[in-house]
Amino acid sequence: MSGEHDPNCIFCKIVRGEIPSRKVHEDEELLAFHDIHPWAPVHFLMVPKQHIASMAQVDEHHAAMLGRMMVLASRLAQQEGCAPYPHGGFRLVVNTGDHGGQEVHHLHMHVIGGPRPWLKG
Amino acid sequence: MSGEHDPNCIFCKIVRGEIPSRKVHEDEELLAFHDIHPWAPVHFLMVPKQHIASMAQVDEHHAAMLGRMMVLASRLAQQEGCAPYPHGGFRLVVNTGDHGGQEVHHLHMHVIGGPRPWLKG
Repeated sequence: MSGEHDPNCIFCKIVRGEIPSRKVHEDEELLAFHDIHPWAPVHFLMVPKQHIASMAQVDEHHAAMLGRMMVLASRLAQQEGCAPYPHGGFRLVVNTGDHGGQEVHHLHMHVIGGPRPWLKG
Repeated sequence: MSGEHDPNCIFCKIVRGEIPSRKVHEDEELLAFHDIHPWAPVHFLMVPKQHIASMAQVDEHHAAMLGRMMVLASRLAQQEGCAPYPHGGFRLVVNTGDHGGQEVHHLHMHVIGGPRPWLKG
Protein backbone atom coordinates (compact mmCIF):
# COMPACT_ATOMS: atom_id res chain seq x y z
CA MET A 1 0.00 0.00 0.00
CA SER A 2 2.83 2.45 0.74
CA GLY A 3 5.44 3.54 -1.75
CA GLU A 4 2.90 5.32 -3.97
CA HIS A 5 3.81 8.98 -4.26
CA ASP A 6 2.72 11.95 -6.35
CA PRO A 7 5.85 13.79 -7.54
CA ASN A 8 4.00 17.13 -7.44
CA CYS A 9 2.59 16.75 -3.91
CA ILE A 10 4.22 18.81 -1.16
CA PHE A 11 3.31 16.26 1.54
CA CYS A 12 4.79 13.41 -0.55
CA LYS A 13 7.99 15.51 -0.70
CA ILE A 14 7.92 15.86 3.10
CA VAL A 15 7.36 12.09 3.46
CA ARG A 16 10.36 11.43 1.17
CA GLY A 17 12.53 13.98 3.01
CA GLU A 18 12.85 16.22 -0.06
CA ILE A 19 11.33 19.04 1.99
CA PRO A 20 12.38 19.24 5.65
CA SER A 21 9.88 19.03 8.48
CA ARG A 22 9.91 19.00 12.25
CA LYS A 23 8.77 15.45 12.88
CA VAL A 24 6.53 14.46 15.75
CA HIS A 25 6.28 10.76 14.85
CA GLU A 26 7.21 8.43 12.01
CA ASP A 27 6.49 4.77 11.35
CA GLU A 28 6.06 2.56 8.29
CA GLU A 29 2.66 3.93 7.42
CA LEU A 30 2.23 7.35 9.05
CA LEU A 31 4.14 10.60 9.47
CA ALA A 32 3.30 13.42 11.91
CA PHE A 33 5.01 16.83 11.67
CA HIS A 34 4.52 20.35 12.99
CA ASP A 35 2.40 22.70 10.86
CA ILE A 36 4.53 25.54 9.50
CA HIS A 37 1.65 28.00 10.07
CA PRO A 38 0.29 26.91 13.46
CA TRP A 39 -3.19 28.05 14.46
CA ALA A 40 -2.62 27.20 18.12
CA PRO A 41 0.11 26.43 20.70
CA VAL A 42 0.03 22.77 19.60
CA HIS A 43 -0.60 22.17 15.89
CA PHE A 44 0.76 19.25 13.97
CA LEU A 45 -0.39 17.26 10.96
CA MET A 46 -0.70 13.51 10.50
CA VAL A 47 -0.51 12.00 7.01
CA PRO A 48 -0.46 8.53 5.52
CA LYS A 49 2.84 8.03 3.69
CA GLN A 50 0.91 6.67 0.74
CA HIS A 51 -0.52 9.43 -1.46
CA ILE A 52 -4.30 9.50 -0.92
CA ALA A 53 -5.79 12.77 -2.18
CA SER A 54 -8.53 13.11 0.42
CA MET A 55 -11.15 11.40 2.55
CA ALA A 56 -13.31 11.24 -0.60
CA GLN A 57 -10.96 8.52 -1.91
CA VAL A 58 -10.95 6.19 1.11
CA ASP A 59 -12.72 2.85 1.39
CA GLU A 60 -12.68 -0.06 3.81
CA HIS A 61 -9.11 -0.92 2.79
CA HIS A 62 -8.00 2.26 4.55
CA ALA A 63 -9.99 1.72 7.75
CA ALA A 64 -7.17 0.13 9.76
CA MET A 65 -4.73 2.92 8.87
CA LEU A 66 -7.30 5.62 9.68
CA GLY A 67 -8.18 4.03 13.01
CA ARG A 68 -4.52 3.81 13.93
CA MET A 69 -4.11 7.49 12.95
CA MET A 70 -6.95 8.48 15.30
CA VAL A 71 -5.56 6.57 18.30
CA LEU A 72 -2.05 7.87 17.63
CA ALA A 73 -3.35 11.46 17.29
CA SER A 74 -4.72 11.28 20.81
CA ARG A 75 -1.49 9.87 22.24
CA LEU A 76 0.72 12.38 20.40
CA ALA A 77 -1.52 15.34 21.36
CA GLN A 78 -0.85 14.58 25.01
CA GLN A 79 2.86 13.94 24.34
CA GLU A 80 3.15 17.30 22.53
CA GLY A 81 1.83 19.23 25.50
CA CYS A 82 -1.95 19.37 25.25
CA ALA A 83 -3.24 19.61 28.79
CA PRO A 84 -5.12 16.61 30.16
CA TYR A 85 -8.82 15.97 29.55
CA PRO A 86 -11.31 17.24 30.57
CA HIS A 87 -9.98 20.79 31.16
CA GLY A 88 -7.34 20.61 28.47
CA GLY A 89 -7.81 18.61 25.32
CA PHE A 90 -7.42 19.03 21.59
CA ARG A 91 -9.30 19.13 18.31
CA LEU A 92 -8.93 16.74 15.35
CA VAL A 93 -9.91 18.18 11.95
CA VAL A 94 -9.83 16.60 8.50
CA ASN A 95 -10.75 18.92 5.63
CA THR A 96 -11.95 17.48 2.33
CA GLY A 97 -12.42 19.46 -0.88
CA ASP A 98 -13.09 23.16 -1.42
CA HIS A 99 -16.19 23.18 0.78
CA GLY A 100 -14.15 21.60 3.57
CA GLY A 101 -11.30 24.08 3.17
CA GLN A 102 -8.73 21.49 2.02
CA GLU A 103 -5.58 23.25 0.81
CA VAL A 104 -3.14 20.36 0.23
CA HIS A 105 -4.60 17.44 -1.67
CA HIS A 106 -2.90 14.70 0.32
CA LEU A 107 -5.11 13.38 3.13
CA HIS A 108 -4.10 14.96 6.45
CA MET A 109 -5.45 15.36 9.95
CA HIS A 110 -4.87 18.56 11.94
CA VAL A 111 -4.19 17.96 15.64
CA ILE A 112 -4.73 21.28 17.43
CA GLY A 113 -4.51 22.08 21.11
CA GLY A 114 -3.95 24.74 23.69
CA PRO A 115 -6.08 27.27 25.57
CA ARG A 116 -9.31 28.40 23.97
CA PRO A 117 -8.53 31.86 22.47
CA TRP A 118 -7.59 30.29 19.11
CA LEU A 119 -11.10 28.88 18.80
CA LYS A 120 -13.27 30.67 16.28
CA GLY A 121 -16.50 28.76 16.75
CA MET B 1 -17.76 -3.77 23.83
CA SER B 2 -21.21 -2.26 23.27
CA GLY B 3 -23.96 -2.27 25.86
CA GLU B 4 -22.04 0.03 28.19
CA HIS B 5 -24.07 3.18 28.76
CA ASP B 6 -23.94 6.17 31.08
CA PRO B 7 -27.48 6.84 32.36
CA ASN B 8 -26.79 10.60 32.55
CA CYS B 9 -25.36 10.95 29.03
CA ILE B 10 -27.58 12.60 26.40
CA PHE B 11 -25.95 10.66 23.54
CA CYS B 12 -26.44 7.35 25.39
CA LYS B 13 -30.12 8.32 25.66
CA ILE B 14 -30.22 8.95 21.90
CA VAL B 15 -28.50 5.59 21.27
CA ARG B 16 -31.11 3.86 23.46
CA GLY B 17 -33.99 5.72 21.80
CA GLU B 18 -34.97 7.49 25.02
CA ILE B 19 -34.44 10.81 23.21
CA PRO B 20 -35.56 10.93 19.55
CA SER B 21 -33.13 11.74 16.74
CA ARG B 22 -33.21 11.98 12.97
CA LYS B 23 -31.01 9.03 12.10
CA VAL B 24 -28.60 9.00 9.18
CA HIS B 25 -27.20 5.52 9.82
CA GLU B 26 -27.32 2.82 12.46
CA ASP B 27 -25.48 -0.48 12.85
CA GLU B 28 -24.35 -2.66 15.76
CA GLU B 29 -21.52 -0.37 16.76
CA LEU B 30 -22.20 3.14 15.39
CA LEU B 31 -25.06 5.65 15.18
CA ALA B 32 -25.18 8.76 12.96
CA PHE B 33 -27.87 11.43 13.45
CA HIS B 34 -28.52 15.02 12.41
CA ASP B 35 -27.22 17.74 14.73
CA ILE B 36 -30.14 19.67 16.27
CA HIS B 37 -28.18 22.94 15.95
CA PRO B 38 -26.58 22.60 12.50
CA TRP B 39 -23.64 24.84 11.63
CA ALA B 40 -23.97 24.14 7.91
CA PRO B 41 -26.34 22.75 5.25
CA VAL B 42 -25.10 19.23 6.06
CA HIS B 43 -24.27 18.58 9.71
CA PHE B 44 -24.62 15.23 11.39
CA LEU B 45 -22.86 13.49 14.27
CA MET B 46 -21.39 10.01 14.45
CA VAL B 47 -21.06 8.25 17.80
CA PRO B 48 -19.99 4.84 19.04
CA LYS B 49 -22.95 3.18 20.77
CA GLN B 50 -20.64 2.29 23.63
CA HIS B 51 -20.13 5.19 26.06
CA ILE B 52 -16.58 6.49 25.58
CA ALA B 53 -16.18 9.94 27.09
CA SER B 54 -13.71 11.34 24.56
CA MET B 55 -10.70 10.69 22.33
CA ALA B 56 -8.57 11.01 25.49
CA GLN B 57 -9.93 7.59 26.57
CA VAL B 58 -9.23 5.62 23.38
CA ASP B 59 -6.52 3.03 22.87
CA GLU B 60 -5.65 0.43 20.23
CA HIS B 61 -8.75 -1.57 21.14
CA HIS B 62 -10.85 1.23 19.62
CA ALA B 63 -8.82 1.58 16.40
CA ALA B 64 -11.03 -0.68 14.25
CA MET B 65 -14.21 1.14 15.32
CA LEU B 66 -12.63 4.56 14.75
CA GLY B 67 -11.33 3.59 11.31
CA ARG B 68 -14.75 2.31 10.33
CA MET B 69 -16.28 5.57 11.58
CA MET B 70 -13.93 7.58 9.35
CA VAL B 71 -14.68 5.56 6.21
CA LEU B 72 -18.40 5.61 6.92
CA ALA B 73 -18.31 9.39 7.55
CA SER B 74 -17.00 9.94 4.03
CA ARG B 75 -19.64 7.69 2.47
CA LEU B 76 -22.49 9.22 4.47
CA ALA B 77 -21.32 12.79 3.75
CA GLN B 78 -21.75 12.15 0.05
CA GLN B 79 -25.05 10.33 0.63
CA GLU B 80 -26.37 13.27 2.68
CA GLY B 81 -25.76 15.73 -0.12
CA CYS B 82 -22.23 17.06 0.19
CA ALA B 83 -21.11 17.98 -3.31
CA PRO B 84 -18.40 15.81 -4.88
CA TYR B 85 -14.69 16.32 -4.27
CA PRO B 86 -12.71 18.39 -5.17
CA HIS B 87 -15.10 21.36 -5.50
CA GLY B 88 -17.55 20.18 -2.87
CA GLY B 89 -16.43 18.20 0.14
CA PHE B 90 -16.88 18.18 3.87
CA ARG B 91 -15.09 18.61 7.19
CA LEU B 92 -14.66 16.03 9.96
CA VAL B 93 -14.14 17.44 13.46
CA VAL B 94 -13.66 15.65 16.77
CA ASN B 95 -13.49 17.93 19.83
CA THR B 96 -11.87 16.70 23.02
CA GLY B 97 -12.00 18.46 26.38
CA ASP B 98 -12.52 22.13 27.21
CA HIS B 99 -9.61 23.31 25.04
CA GLY B 100 -11.09 21.39 22.12
CA GLY B 101 -14.57 22.80 22.68
CA GLN B 102 -16.18 19.45 23.59
CA GLU B 103 -19.70 20.02 24.89
CA VAL B 104 -21.10 16.49 25.22
CA HIS B 105 -18.78 14.04 26.92
CA HIS B 106 -19.55 11.04 24.71
CA LEU B 107 -17.06 10.71 21.84
CA HIS B 108 -18.57 12.14 18.63
CA MET B 109 -17.45 13.21 15.17
CA HIS B 110 -19.04 16.20 13.44
CA VAL B 111 -19.55 15.69 9.69
CA ILE B 112 -20.08 19.14 8.17
CA GLY B 113 -20.60 20.11 4.55
CA GLY B 114 -22.00 22.64 2.16
CA PRO B 115 -20.78 25.88 0.53
CA ARG B 116 -18.07 27.83 2.29
CA PRO B 117 -19.87 30.74 4.05
CA TRP B 118 -20.27 28.73 7.25
CA LEU B 119 -16.49 28.44 7.54
CA LYS B 120 -14.96 30.63 10.20
CA GLY B 121 -11.29 29.84 9.66
